[in-house]
Amino acid sequence: MSDAAVQSPTGLSFPDALSRAQSQISQHIERVLPPREDDLTQSMRYALDGGKMLRGFLVLEGAVLHDVAPETALPAALAIECLHAYSLIHDDLPCMDDDDLRRGKPTVHKRWSEALAVLAGDALQTLAFDLLCDPAIGPPARQIALVRSLAKAAGHDGMVGGQWMDILAETRTAPYSLEEITELQQGKTGALLRWSAMAGPRMAGADPEPLDRYGSALGLAFQIADDILDVEGSAHSVGKAVGKDTALGKATFVSLLGLDGAKARAAALVKEASDALGSYGSRADTLRDAARFVVDRDR
Amino acid sequence: MSDAAVQSPTGLSFPDALSRAQSQISQHIERVLPPREDDLTQSMRYALDGGKMLRGFLVLEGAVLHDVAPETALPAALAIECLHAYSLIHDDLPCMDDDDLRRGKPTVHKRWSEALAVLAGDALQTLAFDLLCDPAIGPPARQIALVRSLAKAAGHDGMVGGQWMDILAETRTAPYSLEEITELQQGKTGALLRWSAMAGPRMAGADPEPLDRYGSALGLAFQIADDILDVEGSAHSVGKAVGKDTALGKATFVSLLGLDGAKARAAALVKEASDALGSYGSRADTLRDAARFVVDRDR
Repeated sequence: MSDAAVQSPTGLSFPDALSRAQSQISQHIERVLPPREDDLTQSMRYALDGGKMLRGFLVLEGAVLHDVAPETALPAALAIECLHAYSLIHDDLPCMDDDDLRRGKPTVHKRWSEALAVLAGDALQTLAFDLLCDPAIGPPARQIALVRSLAKAAGHDGMVGGQWMDILAETRTAPYSLEEITELQQGKTGALLRWSAMAGPRMAGADPEPLDRYGSALGLAFQIADDILDVEGSAHSVGKAVGKDTALGKATFVSLLGLDGAKARAAALVKEASDALGSYGSRADTLRDAARFVVDRDR
Repeated sequence: MSDAAVQSPTGLSFPDALSRAQSQISQHIERVLPPREDDLTQSMRYALDGGKMLRGFLVLEGAVLHDVAPETALPAALAIECLHAYSLIHDDLPCMDDDDLRRGKPTVHKRWSEALAVLAGDALQTLAFDLLCDPAIGPPARQIALVRSLAKAAGHDGMVGGQWMDILAETRTAPYSLEEITELQQGKTGALLRWSAMAGPRMAGADPEPLDRYGSALGLAFQIADDILDVEGSAHSVGKAVGKDTALGKATFVSLLGLDGAKARAAALVKEASDALGSYGSRADTLRDAARFVVDRDR
């Protein structure tokens, strides 16, 4: 097939596709977790609000690439946003990163209480797995494939393992090496991004390998960009505290590679992510655009 | 069939059946979460150790009643123990119930740190859902039935919702009514016990209704017994702090019904639980024995 004949399945630019994903996922929140009087529900909704929804976008865009309908993919897109929101609430707790600001708003424990922050995070993790049991996803085998892979990505050998490595960094005498910081990233932020990219082919029963490579490169680029923002960004534009890693003397991709080295590595990863999508042709242009955005973003 | 012809499927007394369940579940922990150097793994194993494993026992015993093999039921039995252990770790945190002692040992945040307690609890919740994806459970439809029902039981409309009601009790001007304290219990402790009782028939594709009624009555009896222990027990025998609810002026089944009234209600619930098992005949005697134990226990 010639490139001219293969259009991007959505025909949207990345910002438009992201905006549409945000809107679709937000509508699904209203169905799954409608407003209620109690602070538990309100804090869960608050934590889901205002994010980029990059992970949910990846789920929806990967689904489109495999001709999976949005109604089928939406529960999984919201599930990964619930999982991500839970991880942020707990990560912001005083006993963890102790952050007061998230997405430009007070963190859940500042707005309400630490007890509610623990419980809202717990309930959002549960809700993520609940959502993956939605029959709209397809036959039980497809649902279980998503549950199993998310549990691996989120657990002690995935995201939580990476978070624990990150906590340990603060009390180590020697900063992490590049190899260790890469392992930390692959757990802490990489695992969920990879899962998001692979959810589409998983729901279609297709080979997730190309999107796995895309997600891995994107995830690493994302973290390097985060470390660059921690040095170059302002709290106002980023929407959370910056300069913390440097102040704590923690190793980052910038401290290990230098600012220019980190930028060069991020650019190489964007190309790697883009190349991984070769078999999809220009249908994957929105995802290629997403990889560039992740590195160029200002928050 | 005459009673004489229908033996309890295990032929074991409740203490022996519980002890066998503890041994089987502990062996499965060694397979699923073997010892490792890192504190995250160690704290997860620590939190799983030393409990009564009543929930896991209920899963295994309900499975036996439905001719589900132990190998099939073990992942679900360990899953509910992981879920329960996660809830205890988080419930013991300083911002929650602030307990130093659990199962006669220092709580995870006392033994290690609050950060690790948050993460170990998070990872144990994830592991619970991971375990329910074990192919040994049977076809994906059976696995998903367990995941979906556990997510409902554990989430904001189940256990976490009950925990939040419990936290709110400390700042309310008026103590909860009997109706409210029953709703709290149905979430906080009841939902997981019901799930445990129903897991066996769910794995067999059988009607879980009799075991649902059994689990509901057992769960309520369990909480009433807990409230009685909080008044009559010693920290030494119970293995955790006692007298806290009274000191906080929180409503309990004892404060609402009186000590004798609470004991009478618990006894009536034991009979209700036992009667719910009518269709199983004497095969369910071990479960009937379990209901009596729950009320007579000293920890």
